[in-house]
Amino acid sequence: MKIKRALLSVSDKRGIVALARTLRTFDCEIISTGGTKKVLQNAGIDVVDISSVTGNPEAFGGRMKTISFAIESALLFDRERDADEAAALGIQPIDMVVCNLYPFDKVKAQGADLATLIENIDIGGPTMVRASAKNYKFVATLTDVQDYQTIIAELQASDGALSLKTRFKLMRKAFNHTADYDSLIATTMDEQAGAMSLRYHFTGGRALRYGENSHQKGWIYRDAAAGKSLYDCVFLHGKELSYNNFNDIQGAIDAVKELGRFGVSVIKHSNPCGLAEADDQRVALENAWGGDPVSAFGSIVAFNQPVNRHTVSFFELNNEDKSRRKFVEVVVAPDFSEDALQYLMFHKNLRVIRFDPQNSANAFDLKYLAGSLLVQDADVAMFSKMELKTRRTIDLDASRALIEFGIKGMRQVKSNSIVIVRRTQDGGYQLLGMGAGQPNRLISTKLAIEKARENLQNEYTGNDFEAYVKTVFAKAILVSDAYFPFPDNIEIAAAAGIKTIIQPGGSIRDKKVIKACDQLGLAMVFTGLRHFKH
Amino acid sequence: MKIKRALLSVSDKRGIVALARTLRTFDCEIISTGGTKKVLQNAGIDVVDISSVTGNPEAFGGRMKTISFAIESALLFDRERDADEAAALGIQPIDMVVCNLYPFDKVKAQGADLATLIENIDIGGPTMVRASAKNYKFVATLTDVQDYQTIIAELQASDGALSLKTRFKLMRKAFNHTADYDSLIATTMDEQAGAMSLRYHFTGGRALRYGENSHQKGWIYRDAAAGKSLYDCVFLHGKELSYNNFNDIQGAIDAVKELGRFGVSVIKHSNPCGLAEADDQRVALENAWGGDPVSAFGSIVAFNQPVNRHTVSFFELNNEDKSRRKFVEVVVAPDFSEDALQYLMFHKNLRVIRFDPQNSANAFDLKYLAGSLLVQDADVAMFSKMELKTRRTIDLDASRALIEFGIKGMRQVKSNSIVIVRRTQDGGYQLLGMGAGQPNRLISTKLAIEKARENLQNEYTGNDFEAYVKTVFAKAILVSDAYFPFPDNIEIAAAAGIKTIIQPGGSIRDKKVIKACDQLGLAMVFTGLRHFKH
Repeated sequence: MKIKRALLSVSDKRGIVALARTLRTFDCEIISTGGTKKVLQNAGIDVVDISSVTGNPEAFGGRMKTISFAIESALLFDRERDADEAAALGIQPIDMVVCNLYPFDKVKAQGADLATLIENIDIGGPTMVRASAKNYKFVATLTDVQDYQTIIAELQASDGALSLKTRFKLMRKAFNHTADYDSLIATTMDEQAGAMSLRYHFTGGRALRYGENSHQKGWIYRDAAAGKSLYDCVFLHGKELSYNNFNDIQGAIDAVKELGRFGVSVIKHSNPCGLAEADDQRVALENAWGGDPVSAFGSIVAFNQPVNRHTVSFFELNNEDKSRRKFVEVVVAPDFSEDALQYLMFHKNLRVIRFDPQNSANAFDLKYLAGSLLVQDADVAMFSKMELKTRRTIDLDASRALIEFGIKGMRQVKSNSIVIVRRTQDGGYQLLGMGAGQPNRLISTKLAIEKARENLQNEYTGNDFEAYVKTVFAKAILVSDAYFPFPDNIEIAAAAGIKTIIQPGGSIRDKKVIKACDQLGLAMVFTGLRHFKH
Repeated sequence: MKIKRALLSVSDKRGIVALARTLRTFDCEIISTGGTKKVLQNAGIDVVDISSVTGNPEAFGGRMKTISFAIESALLFDRERDADEAAALGIQPIDMVVCNLYPFDKVKAQGADLATLIENIDIGGPTMVRASAKNYKFVATLTDVQDYQTIIAELQASDGALSLKTRFKLMRKAFNHTADYDSLIATTMDEQAGAMSLRYHFTGGRALRYGENSHQKGWIYRDAAAGKSLYDCVFLHGKELSYNNFNDIQGAIDAVKELGRFGVSVIKHSNPCGLAEADDQRVALENAWGGDPVSAFGSIVAFNQPVNRHTVSFFELNNEDKSRRKFVEVVVAPDFSEDALQYLMFHKNLRVIRFDPQNSANAFDLKYLAGSLLVQDADVAMFSKMELKTRRTIDLDASRALIEFGIKGMRQVKSNSIVIVRRTQDGGYQLLGMGAGQPNRLISTKLAIEKARENLQNEYTGNDFEAYVKTVFAKAILVSDAYFPFPDNIEIAAAAGIKTIIQPGGSIRDKKVIKACDQLGLAMVFTGLRHFKH
């Protein structure tokens, strides 16, 4: 369909001259309004003023420019069914609308008052856009400056015509544009009235093999308003990503993205069962793996730095002794060296994903509860204070980095959450044991201690294991996501040999808990911030 | 602002005659179009035809009716700033638009083809609605049939005028209406192109005291497109509901809503630590509480039936011995007898919520991952088969109800999830122990067994506890949310005295697992459906 007559009326003038020039090379007549017309005329382009088509003046401070029987008829009439009627009424078709709307979003972002917001609600623009989009079988609707280049190329390749396929695509974009526009106006006006509403737009839906389980269908979309997210990850190798993979990868990314140096997280069922940072990436991986070498099989492993071959050769994927091969479901990192990727490809099913954890930051958490929506600020703070509460002291400055590592780890474990962390001999930090998702905090404490002991057993080669545990635990730190309601947790930790506990504080029985620490010779620090995660 | 001239053009004709009659009693001039005009004239109401205002005919099969310089000018011009210009152009103000749009939603629901969908995209309607809404300072925009009664009342009370407040409210509704309208068109056209997009609208946002933790802000909204949900629960008594309360109440409701007879769930940190159904509500509560009498303190308790005083007196809220009082955070039920409510109000902080779990059903789960969205069908199926795999048999028909109870419980526990359920002496079903949220299934199995033993210890008064455990476990059922990768879980269960295991099956080592059952004398049933929940 050749574009013989086009209406150009844009708020954002970028690229409009080049587009108009292209249209003119095919003798397309250009109708235009106010500011757009000036820009085009200044560029030496022949333009017909809109009022010569509408028969009406521009009126009411620009509120009325395009809206008219003549313009909307020219956009809307069915070129087949209504041809005679149009001719009788003297309506000549317009084949293209190029229009972007008053910048309500920008004006809002600038903190405009109600009157200014209202003045920036475009009426004529959406009318043209919607009318021409409805009639996409005969009319092209251009609403996005980013599309001009492709459209120019198609016009040039097709002797000034645009295909039905292109017009259909532009129509979809047009209605998405007006939907976005009115969505923002609606939520803004609600906001002006003190009423809170939210509108989300998710795009690019892709069906996954299935949902959390094979009898559930599953999909992934991107939030059109968000920046980069997991949706944009680059799939380098392996089996298709599953619903549970995406969920776990997000957990792995969240766990690793705040770590310093070389950081590694190992995720199973959305809880980190391994977490470490070190000066050496291979060491970090070994230490993360060591957090739960049993559960680490079939896990999701995330790195905060580009990965090299020496690091991933830890997985022993090509070991002739198959029992030595460490299979993980997914490896995700900001990048992979060529030989690291080659190495990982030894396993045909292992999913290798390029995604920079730094690209996954969100100010908000959303939780959908069967028709209700919980929204909250992301949990980004770590502590509001660092207050030693016991007779036994610790050097807070010297321990600060390890404590922060412990809080970062604990914050990713589902509540009730207890983690035990230590400084390793190489100067790195390691999650030595964790207890997750228990209704009773006591059980989480027991689970963390048991797992830590098990891990120490794996590394210990001497013949006084209990003495070794005491030595390690004396320098380790136990971190709790919420206060201890009773001294029982302290007693269990003390019996195991733990000497330092980090917790938010805030229980009505804090005094009893502190007293228990004093009696048992433990140091306890209050951070002031609870970190529930469900 | 008195309504002197109104434009009525509606697709849905309900209530339009009554509204027009009211307007006429205040001598308001009524302009109307096609079908609407006929309905009003048939009712004997004086109507001015729109074409006498626009100066144009209705054209192109109805595509052009209202859009014109005259109409939109009459709606849009600023009554103060533009008064002279309007007079000079012969534009008389229109003070009210009553308009609802072509029923794109209904046509879509009927499965219309693309051409029909396109024909049902209203162009003139949204233009009028948006123009009059923009000019809300001078024009009222009525888009919802449900509002006619209130508007009629205000017109009658105010001598044919509508307040600025009303016009502002109508304006918000108008932009929400056009946003919804174009949102549906946009997602439908994407769909037509095989591209998946979603648009959600959440309304009625309320700030909560804080989010999951006190340093996070939190809000709750309702999904405008969903039916009743937790947002609509009725708050009868107690402290304000917190973010975590809402999350846990949803968990409690999900756990109880599928139970038969009298059902009760007890939730802590979004996992059910207690679950029971019985012929008697008080018994069900006692048995649910018995699933973890330690963690039940400070829990969320949900009922599937209206609650009576005898049931809740179990909490002993007014016991003079304060240590006997069982404090829970929230009690939620479809209803409360007057005396049950009075009883619960003994505790000033206890939140009492009226909500019928049956009102919380959703076809979809949404999970937001920092800019990406996972969508899946809700997990509603229980099993695809019921296949005995071992030499030891069980009577599947006789055990069916208990197995289903076990699956319902297991399905609500975070993965890896293991539950042990039993039939109680009164013929009810009880969750006797559960293991939740562990990276290693073995730990979940151990946790479930330990908890079950602990609970049996609470009820046992004899002097051969181990024999008692064996007797109970021999009749209990252990349910796993996913297959057992190795026989180790079987060995632990067998050693504890468990005789019957329900699991989906599907491991490459199923044969080894079945063999272990046969060697240890256990019955095992495969259900074919995994139930991961994260």
